[in-house]
Amino acid sequence: MSEILFEKIALIGIGLIGSSLARVIRREGLTNHLAISTRSQATLDEARALHLGDSYCLDPRDAVHDADLVIISVPVGSSGAVAEQIAPALKPGAIVSDVGSTKASVIAQMQPHMPDHVHFIPGHPIAGTEKSGPAAGFAELFQGRWCILTPLPGTDQAAVERLGRFWEACGSRLDTMDPNHHDKVLAIVSHLPHIIAYNIVGTADDLETVTQSEVIKYSASGFRDFTRLAASDPVMWRDICLHNKDAILEMLARFSEDLASLQRAIRWGDGDKLFEMFTHTRDVRRSIIEAGQEVDLPDFGRQAATKN
Amino acid sequence: MSEILFEKIALIGIGLIGSSLARVIRREGLTNHLAISTRSQATLDEARALHLGDSYCLDPRDAVHDADLVIISVPVGSSGAVAEQIAPALKPGAIVSDVGSTKASVIAQMQPHMPDHVHFIPGHPIAGTEKSGPAAGFAELFQGRWCILTPLPGTDQAAVERLGRFWEACGSRLDTMDPNHHDKVLAIVSHLPHIIAYNIVGTADDLETVTQSEVIKYSASGFRDFTRLAASDPVMWRDICLHNKDAILEMLARFSEDLASLQRAIRWGDGDKLFEMFTHTRDVRRSIIEAGQEVDLPDFGRQAATKN
Repeated sequence: MSEILFEKIALIGIGLIGSSLARVIRREGLTNHLAISTRSQATLDEARALHLGDSYCLDPRDAVHDADLVIISVPVGSSGAVAEQIAPALKPGAIVSDVGSTKASVIAQMQPHMPDHVHFIPGHPIAGTEKSGPAAGFAELFQGRWCILTPLPGTDQAAVERLGRFWEACGSRLDTMDPNHHDKVLAIVSHLPHIIAYNIVGTADDLETVTQSEVIKYSASGFRDFTRLAASDPVMWRDICLHNKDAILEMLARFSEDLASLQRAIRWGDGDKLFEMFTHTRDVRRSIIEAGQEVDLPDFGRQAATKN
Repeated sequence: MSEILFEKIALIGIGLIGSSLARVIRREGLTNHLAISTRSQATLDEARALHLGDSYCLDPRDAVHDADLVIISVPVGSSGAVAEQIAPALKPGAIVSDVGSTKASVIAQMQPHMPDHVHFIPGHPIAGTEKSGPAAGFAELFQGRWCILTPLPGTDQAAVERLGRFWEACGSRLDTMDPNHHDKVLAIVSHLPHIIAYNIVGTADDLETVTQSEVIKYSASGFRDFTRLAASDPVMWRDICLHNKDAILEMLARFSEDLASLQRAIRWGDGDKLFEMFTHTRDVRRSIIEAGQEVDLPDFGRQAATKN
């Protein structure tokens, strides 16, 4: 148990990230009252059935009333509308943050609505799975993962530190970054991989020469790895593509350029070039494992997991 | 324990696949003598230290002498040279097979050297991890995975059935396929995914705007998934690219075409098209899990594996 960091916390949106936050806030005892709000009655009922919070409401204004910390966990395309809706109900001195995968767009959408008497501090925990909804969350999701805060110039440093302590209490490691740089970094480490995964699964789905059932039967030879990212929430990923367009298009251009050169090496049978390209990628995974960002087990630990 | 299927089995090549075969052959008691041969003294010593077989030799001719089943597990580019080398020493009536990821090229390389008095039956177990070498193998590797045999016209059916029983005793599910169709199927389910993974890891490695350490720190947001395939054996994958060129180039063209259309949807902010593209890919993973080819756990069971 950590200490009470905020008398009342409001979570707007209770999907994978929101419900994981609810679970770790409860486990660590970080608040005296956890208010949960989401647009859909069905999702709200699910959150209540899972006992994720202390109060539940469809209107986010009820949840943020008197809340000292408000965390918005909705698809990035909805953050502006939510900000506009909750603004009048926000408590003076409250910290308002989010978990969106794009920051420049979220800031552009939310900041105009934020009253001067609150601390608006955008954030992004680098954690997740391919699952969605309140039942998919778990308290360990943020353990050892990085959370990036992108505070705006002039933000109260004490408020930034307070939000940082909250994420650390949730198990996160903390970073701060310029919003535009965040969007470039995420475009390569998260957005491009998801887009490529969605694309290759789509390509395999559309072939005439190879049947769908063949793709599924033999997927253990590599293809199945891509289907995990491609099983992520379509609304979340549609919004990310719409709201981090420039950085994503830049990374896509680099990727396609490199792929054309690899394709040329295959066409011309340039074995030395292929060997060189396939060699220097190996160290990257080793570094990720050493950085504690990946399990040190073959095949993502699939074999080990099935032994449980 | 299954019954003795072959009095003597020779494994040429003792990497991930060869050493996994050795372990399951030993566990199931499928032979009275398991002979192991590999080019490198160091690898041979490693296999001996791991007690993978009954005899060990650098010269594959010594291993195949009197062997009733010979399985060649080497990079596909070396299968012709191995076939030529062992041909004079093969026992009449012996079954000679391989585990290569490309079949048309392996057949073209090996068949000319195969004496009429042996049964040459190409094969490919659809199983593996990103690890290489004798220490990386494990007896369960083939459990529930498919093994594809691509027998040539006029092959003795009894011999094909005997090889099939061997793979079933190793835990595999069995399929037969035309070699050229196999190469198209593998191009999409295995070769394209590996090439794309190698490429995206390469792209991330070459950026000026995002540092290597940022890519590693934040890789849990998607990128790390690709580093597994991109950590596979470079020689094996160089050879696959050189020996399944046409099918791979065909799949790369389809992939790039689809990616261009996805890129266009991002550029023009076509949210409906993006949503549609990101929706119909979800069922594919579900089908793979239902087919028993993927663990039914979020995040490949990484979380579950670390709980061991």
